[in-house]
Amino acid sequence: MNTLYVSSPTKTLKKYDGSQLRPLFSYEHFGLKGNAMLSWVAPTDVTLTHMVDYEDKIEESKICGDKMLHFMIEFFPANLSTGVMAQRLLASIIKDLAQAKAPKAVLSRKGDDIYVGQGKLSISIASVSAVSTLIHFAVNITNKGTPVKTASLEDLKIKPDAFAKEVLKAFSSEFEDVMWATQKVKPL
Amino acid sequence: MNTLYVSSPTKTLKKYDGSQLRPLFSYEHFGLKGNAMLSWVAPTDVTLTHMVDYEDKIEESKICGDKMLHFMIEFFPANLSTGVMAQRLLASIIKDLAQAKAPKAVLSRKGDDIYVGQGKLSISIASVSAVSTLIHFAVNITNKGTPVKTASLEDLKIKPDAFAKEVLKAFSSEFEDVMWATQKVKPL
Amino acid sequence: MNTLYVSSPTKTLKKYDGSQLRPLFSYEHFGLKGNAMLSWVAPTDVTLTHMVDYEDKIEESKICGDKMLHFMIEFFPANLSTGVMAQRLLASIIKDLAQAKAPKAVLSRKGDDIYVGQGKLSISIASVSAVSTLIHFAVNITNKGTPVKTASLEDLKIKPDAFAKEVLKAFSSEFEDVMWATQKVKPL
Amino acid sequence: MNTLYVSSPTKTLKKYDGSQLRPLFSYEHFGLKGNAMLSWVAPTDVTLTHMVDYEDKIEESKICGDKMLHFMIEFFPANLSTGVMAQRLLASIIKDLAQAKAPKAVLSRKGDDIYVGQGKLSISIASVSAVSTLIHFAVNITNKGTPVKTASLEDLKIKPDAFAKEVLKAFSSEFEDVMWATQKVKPL
Amino acid sequence: MNTLYVSSPTKTLKKYDGSQLRPLFSYEHFGLKGNAMLSWVAPTDVTLTHMVDYEDKIEESKICGDKMLHFMIEFFPANLSTGVMAQRLLASIIKDLAQAKAPKAVLSRKGDDIYVGQGKLSISIASVSAVSTLIHFAVNITNKGTPVKTASLEDLKIKPDAFAKEVLKAFSSEFEDVMWATQKVKPL
Amino acid sequence: MNTLYVSSPTKTLKKYDGSQLRPLFSYEHFGLKGNAMLSWVAPTDVTLTHMVDYEDKIEESKICGDKMLHFMIEFFPANLSTGVMAQRLLASIIKDLAQAKAPKAVLSRKGDDIYVGQGKLSISIASVSAVSTLIHFAVNITNKGTPVKTASLEDLKIKPDAFAKEVLKAFSSEFEDVMWATQKVKPL
Repeated sequence: MNTLYVSSPTKTLKKYDGSQLRPLFSYEHFGLKGNAMLSWVAPTDVTLTHMVDYEDKIEESKICGDKMLHFMIEFFPANLSTGVMAQRLLASIIKDLAQAKAPKAVLSRKGDDIYVGQGKLSISIASVSAVSTLIHFAVNITNKGTPVKTASLEDLKIKPDAFAKEVLKAFSSEFEDVMWATQKVKPL
Repeated sequence: MNTLYVSSPTKTLKKYDGSQLRPLFSYEHFGLKGNAMLSWVAPTDVTLTHMVDYEDKIEESKICGDKMLHFMIEFFPANLSTGVMAQRLLASIIKDLAQAKAPKAVLSRKGDDIYVGQGKLSISIASVSAVSTLIHFAVNITNKGTPVKTASLEDLKIKPDAFAKEVLKAFSSEFEDVMWATQKVKPL
Repeated sequence: MNTLYVSSPTKTLKKYDGSQLRPLFSYEHFGLKGNAMLSWVAPTDVTLTHMVDYEDKIEESKICGDKMLHFMIEFFPANLSTGVMAQRLLASIIKDLAQAKAPKAVLSRKGDDIYVGQGKLSISIASVSAVSTLIHFAVNITNKGTPVKTASLEDLKIKPDAFAKEVLKAFSSEFEDVMWATQKVKPL
Repeated sequence: MNTLYVSSPTKTLKKYDGSQLRPLFSYEHFGLKGNAMLSWVAPTDVTLTHMVDYEDKIEESKICGDKMLHFMIEFFPANLSTGVMAQRLLASIIKDLAQAKAPKAVLSRKGDDIYVGQGKLSISIASVSAVSTLIHFAVNITNKGTPVKTASLEDLKIKPDAFAKEVLKAFSSEFEDVMWATQKVKPL
Repeated sequence: MNTLYVSSPTKTLKKYDGSQLRPLFSYEHFGLKGNAMLSWVAPTDVTLTHMVDYEDKIEESKICGDKMLHFMIEFFPANLSTGVMAQRLLASIIKDLAQAKAPKAVLSRKGDDIYVGQGKLSISIASVSAVSTLIHFAVNITNKGTPVKTASLEDLKIKPDAFAKEVLKAFSSEFEDVMWATQKVKPL
Repeated sequence: MNTLYVSSPTKTLKKYDGSQLRPLFSYEHFGLKGNAMLSWVAPTDVTLTHMVDYEDKIEESKICGDKMLHFMIEFFPANLSTGVMAQRLLASIIKDLAQAKAPKAVLSRKGDDIYVGQGKLSISIASVSAVSTLIHFAVNITNKGTPVKTASLEDLKIKPDAFAKEVLKAFSSEFEDVMWATQKVKPL
């Protein structure tokens, strides 16, 4: 899994509005080939058109925040149940890495969300196109501009840049290891 | 996902030798229908015939322990990448639950293994038949009879029975929630 | 499979024009989660844009009727051959239920169509998105506004409301039973 | 779908014991290529080893009868939900054809079973190998040697040979038509 | 696999701009049912909107030529790895057929491209929709209007019409034979 | 795709009897991880038990030869149509490489077979397990011990060792390139 942390977000990354979650985005704009994971810092404001989760749509949830650390994963081929499992594994990895950096905070994972106490640290979605599986996961850097009670990396005194790189490394290793685990067992 | 903790292991569960990891075992022997998760306490001694992981086979690993807490999951249909992702999510859930009960211990998940410091707490495998996906996950209750440096629930002062029930509840809820998450998103 | 008969069609159901046959429609508008089956009464006039069946498109078929009883099914994941088989099973179920209520009429199923004598009682289509399988099935309540020789529930003296509920119950039970039948057999 | 009615059962068909329900049987023994449907008359006595349905196994059901009309279908590739849907569609087709020949009898389909009044007319199972989907469906010709209250073609005054050929024709046409229906629709 | 060589290209085929590579095109416009392969002669100028290959998009490749022999294949269901393998097999078949007609030329296949010496003879792409697999393959008839150093059927003294028909016959036979080869082996 | 030419065949490779064509063989015996391709020289005598192709079984074909160059490929996951397409692409690659070394010989590929004039140069089969796709392809080194009119590498003056390495390199590159081609296109 190829990874990239974009430290100076280009025009197309300036604001995460959901349009970026589409097949081949990381390849088209950053040359990341095949299974890929991209990360960058940007405000979030997902428009209704790009709202993938109908639960959010029905509840008219706002999906926004002034500054978030984004992760976007694409892997091949389309496999939504694998995608959702991977999304939650990513939530677990991020939670564990953040917990290690902020040992006094009380972090927990609930489904695809991470909480610090009662504050929601993250947003996430997974879906598929006809060719690939896509995951978006974003962590609040600040609590400004968020629509509900949130927590943020600022609260935890975690610097986004270094943290992003750790997450990219940890998840991409995990992903490769999972792929390998599907290629070494006999059928039952 | 239907779950069952078998407090008084029947003959077929007396020793985990790998033969139990087969399609429909939980239904045939315990009437658990559909997606199912079974748990019980038994010694482990996986014979070469039932060794599913060729990595173990090549390295001539011994897979044994005098007393382990077993979890066996079957879900439909066959999907090995989902199975391996689910296996690691289960490892993460068990690690978090054990950590909460033993806050001073240093627990970590590495792939499908849980460690307490340097001691290996668990063994696990995931594979598929033509009809279903199967996962076995077992946690040492004691360090006796294990082939490498291990850790155990005894070290962590965790009682297997209550712990098993918590794990069954947490993973089965997670699984249902994952299934639901595959049924509420629009394609990309 | 969650079911709902919408006795007072909302704006989005006022006319079936084919736009309703899209992923997550029943969830978005009626909160039906997961595998779902919706039913309501409305006129039909499928526009060319929403014509899913190219056979109809090529033959420039009109798909219309002044008053029809609609059934719309969505199940997960995408599986078109299962979808078409399910569509015909639904046709068979509706035919049998109608036959029981109108024992003197001569009903027959031909593929995904139901006939009363030479009159066509129904229209239907099945297709997939990247996330789900969708089926539309509609039965004439009146013969008015139909483009070919048709038959209708009025001819059979069948009341749409009660009949709709019977069909919802029969098909959803059948569907659950089919799913169960995929989870209780050993591979060959 | 290639079809064959074997009027003089060969040695391998003399008794249906479940061993015939395996990949490529119809091709190996009768040269039926690709998607295939075979029919013949023979007694049934399914041994425990060849019992595919764990529900039968758990309930220690006997699957037997002195003289039954057998249908065995194989299609490619493996797709169990399509297989079970197809199995029920076959039950529906057989029920309708038998009803037409015995208009005074009260036939009904319940899942994959056909009943005449309270008497069970048929047995059936569907499963998959790694390469194909397999269905067995058999109809009692006589009530002799059956383990429960049954009905039979004799009761209905239906001659097995001609009936078998009608069923072969009807189901194989239906199957081809279903395949075609998966190849003429646009995605949603 | 149904095949058609359109000797007098209709309006929709007058120029290949990429819009033709969509599900059911051959059925909608030429009545080719099911797995289908269409061929015709037309200039090529693929617009950015219809550029399927992101590698081309990134490199801002021009995909054009004044006169090309087009082949468009659709088969069911969606299976992209089979599609890409089939695309290369097609390249191999065309290369071998052209080589036989021009024994002194040095033809070679590199991936999905055919070369005559250093000149590129062909362009090609394969992708999927939610219902089918699609391949476009085109061979230069002339070197006029091409964006790179090319070779053409004119160079090889090969007449497009007869050649097209040979290719249609060879690939469609190969495809049927491949399908048959998936229906005659036992699982491993 | 990991590749290995075993110049001194170990015990398990001494004779190809078909038992080697099983999941994970290359990993278990030679440590080749993941998608893998193995090659070696050995006599062939496939026993009836290990005959995968029912066409051979029905025709009671003998599959044997005193000295053959073997190629065995395994890739993940199971996908039989991709496997058969890959098998034929391999035949095409081997044919082209041999043709380049023996320019005066008349080589041709027919399906999964290579011919030199009327002499059959090769044997091959492709199938799947529940976890992977497997291909065996072997080329006669000598015509001794073969059951039909054959051709051999000896006839073509091709040395097996160097040739094997060329084939391993060419096919593994092609395979990687095919995988990449499934990860760079937008859906249609």
